[in-house]
Amino acid sequence: MKTLKNLFLDELADMYDAEQRIVKALPKMAKAATCEDLKAAIKSHLKETEGHVKKLKQVFQCFDKKAKGKTCEATVGLLKEGDEIAAEFKGSPAINAALIAAAQKVEHYEIASYGCLSEWAGLLGNQKAAGLLQQILDQEKHANEALNELAHSSLNEEALGDG
Amino acid sequence: MKTLKNLFLDELADMYDAEQRIVKALPKMAKAATCEDLKAAIKSHLKETEGHVKKLKQVFQCFDKKAKGKTCEATVGLLKEGDEIAAEFKGSPAINAALIAAAQKVEHYEIASYGCLSEWAGLLGNQKAAGLLQQILDQEKHANEALNELAHSSLNEEALGDG
Repeated sequence: MKTLKNLFLDELADMYDAEQRIVKALPKMAKAATCEDLKAAIKSHLKETEGHVKKLKQVFQCFDKKAKGKTCEATVGLLKEGDEIAAEFKGSPAINAALIAAAQKVEHYEIASYGCLSEWAGLLGNQKAAGLLQQILDQEKHANEALNELAHSSLNEEALGDG
Repeated sequence: MKTLKNLFLDELADMYDAEQRIVKALPKMAKAATCEDLKAAIKSHLKETEGHVKKLKQVFQCFDKKAKGKTCEATVGLLKEGDEIAAEFKGSPAINAALIAAAQKVEHYEIASYGCLSEWAGLLGNQKAAGLLQQILDQEKHANEALNELAHSSLNEEALGDG
């Protein structure tokens, strides 16, 4: 019978796939950004995301499992939308606001997932895994906040393009 | 030249499509849930979601546009994942926890999108649209909180399946 442990391992495989897709997508987003602060924020989150892949491997180990991904359809869709919007707004004053919106959708997806995973790991009695997942969750929340600040500081207004 | 207004209308079309997909998906989720409180929460959010479709039509009107959707790839992926997980955990004590996780991912997607849309509408000087979008955002946040409470109250523990 499938229980919370199966659900946890399913979601973990989902995020292991998602993080690897995000590692490939972030350099394209950094290149598409025309604001230096946004480029820097994306590059900094790329390093964190590479760390998340490693942390997820450790979480699999906590449950005596080998790390294995499972195609994360939601992330595939989220990144496809991000690609489309980056192409559509290339050369536009709204490019940075568009990239931030796309990136925040990914962050929110991750916040929802790691919120569940961290709590489930605790219920499954694995405090080490819960701690690792909480660390990732905190970084995703922080990345989302940093994007919010960039949008509010100037990039949304710049996107108006009327001067 | 594309500006924030184009970005806003693009995202609005995205969410108009997303909400209609969610209206179709929620009854299936309510049927799959085995906890009466969760069924009720999903049905209550279905009514709100039907209201969101109407509110989005009004937002299009605020900008003298006819409501038109554009396939929201992220929502397609999110709902596909939800379908898969509901099928996989049918008959399992973790079914309700699985449905809540899937629903929270959709809520977080919407929270990210409406956060941007509401702010952008304000920057574009359309306070009526900004207000309507903020109302939707508040309901999405509230729906996410309600799911959190259900998960924490008992459904995550029930999912352990070991009594």
